[in-house]
Amino acid sequence: MINNSTNNIKDPRVTLVGAGPGDAELITLKGIKALQTADVVLYDALVNDELLEYAPADAVKVYVGKRSGDHFFSQDNINRLMVDYALNYGHVVRLKGGDPFVFGRGHEELDFAADYNIPTQVIPGISSSIGVPGLQGIPVTHRGLSESFWVVTGTTSDGKISRDIYDAAKTNATVVVLMGIHKLAKIADIFKNEGKGKLPVAVIQSGTTVNEKVAIGSVDSIAELAAQQGITSPALIVFGEVVSLHPKFELVKQVYDVVANG
Amino acid sequence: MINNSTNNIKDPRVTLVGAGPGDAELITLKGIKALQTADVVLYDALVNDELLEYAPADAVKVYVGKRSGDHFFSQDNINRLMVDYALNYGHVVRLKGGDPFVFGRGHEELDFAADYNIPTQVIPGISSSIGVPGLQGIPVTHRGLSESFWVVTGTTSDGKISRDIYDAAKTNATVVVLMGIHKLAKIADIFKNEGKGKLPVAVIQSGTTVNEKVAIGSVDSIAELAAQQGITSPALIVFGEVVSLHPKFELVKQVYDVVANG
Repeated sequence: MINNSTNNIKDPRVTLVGAGPGDAELITLKGIKALQTADVVLYDALVNDELLEYAPADAVKVYVGKRSGDHFFSQDNINRLMVDYALNYGHVVRLKGGDPFVFGRGHEELDFAADYNIPTQVIPGISSSIGVPGLQGIPVTHRGLSESFWVVTGTTSDGKISRDIYDAAKTNATVVVLMGIHKLAKIADIFKNEGKGKLPVAVIQSGTTVNEKVAIGSVDSIAELAAQQGITSPALIVFGEVVSLHPKFELVKQVYDVVANG
Repeated sequence: MINNSTNNIKDPRVTLVGAGPGDAELITLKGIKALQTADVVLYDALVNDELLEYAPADAVKVYVGKRSGDHFFSQDNINRLMVDYALNYGHVVRLKGGDPFVFGRGHEELDFAADYNIPTQVIPGISSSIGVPGLQGIPVTHRGLSESFWVVTGTTSDGKISRDIYDAAKTNATVVVLMGIHKLAKIADIFKNEGKGKLPVAVIQSGTTVNEKVAIGSVDSIAELAAQQGITSPALIVFGEVVSLHPKFELVKQVYDVVANG
């Protein structure tokens, strides 16, 4: 139905908005203002529903969630819907979990809209890769422990483990793996093979929400610990000495003999 | 003056708030709410002054900016001020540019406050490492171009170039260097030595503010291009194929024969 036949419709435009990691108050003021002028909101699975209340009551709100193993909407479907709605309704806010450009395929959506000469704008969001560990007391960088952090996807487009994780396991960077929880044991093995069995690791599910769960351990123990706690998707994994700053780490260290090998 | 002798003072507490990359509307709603209940705001050089208006008119506002080569306040000074104010005035909002844990020494400040049994809270901010490239049309990750991004400091505590930059230059990650603009030529050489002279690079100064400047080029050309534009601190550097998605890249490519070597 891509057309623009309706009379008196508003100028089409698309705003890509990062909703942040889950807590509704972790959206930006700019994101809220975009929602307040939305004619349509297309929102993802990991977006907090409360945010929809910022949009006008008569705005169209469409759930286009897709999750690994749970594909309701293909990216093509979403792109097409976004353009359809912009041409027929006006201002589409495309509300995405975290930041739109951290494995969010945000640029593909902007590109698609640009092909129809629809003006686009971007409003960044708090990426869970930084904010979720931070709120747990794990800084992604810390003097003496880490001069950098490396954020990698655990699930590449072809379903394999990213080559970048093998490279990351060799370095001193804090390594944050998103969308890797279903491959936790395999990913931990990559670090083990680099002689990092004692490296501290955190797994955090549903960070900043009421469903938040955390497992703190070492490369050697983390898969077992996460399974014991029933941790499942969505979750991120943090590998690095900075995990030793987590308040629970001392206790875990005593029990599991996790020795930070700084 | 660390003491708590005043009568009727409020309970001391410290909230570490990420102010985002510069645009005042890129702070979170939660950050605004914290400011609205501040008795004291301690703010950094890279924080947008407009944000101070969210704090009550009678709140104490103290600039504690330090910039490389421009040390007004040592970290020790800041830690001590923060605790002094909390004990004597109540709620201290420690407002930091970007996210408090991305080279922000946020954890050190929380630790210092905890030593005085002062309750602390963290509110993440939009890190310039993701948000600034994103707003320029450079996604830190993009299917087919980058499965990861690696954020590194250009200035380590001992003034040297981080070992992690040498490692990062060997990988396929998008590499974002913060606080590295004064060493741009040297950092570009590290990538050149890995055979990446043609790799696309962006340098962005004062992202999301009215002073924003951008240079787009390749590893071989970026130092010259950034100098031509008079780009200076604060600025970040983005190395990676994703820079080829920047709208100006095609033009630069024609002029400088930058060939994306995917």
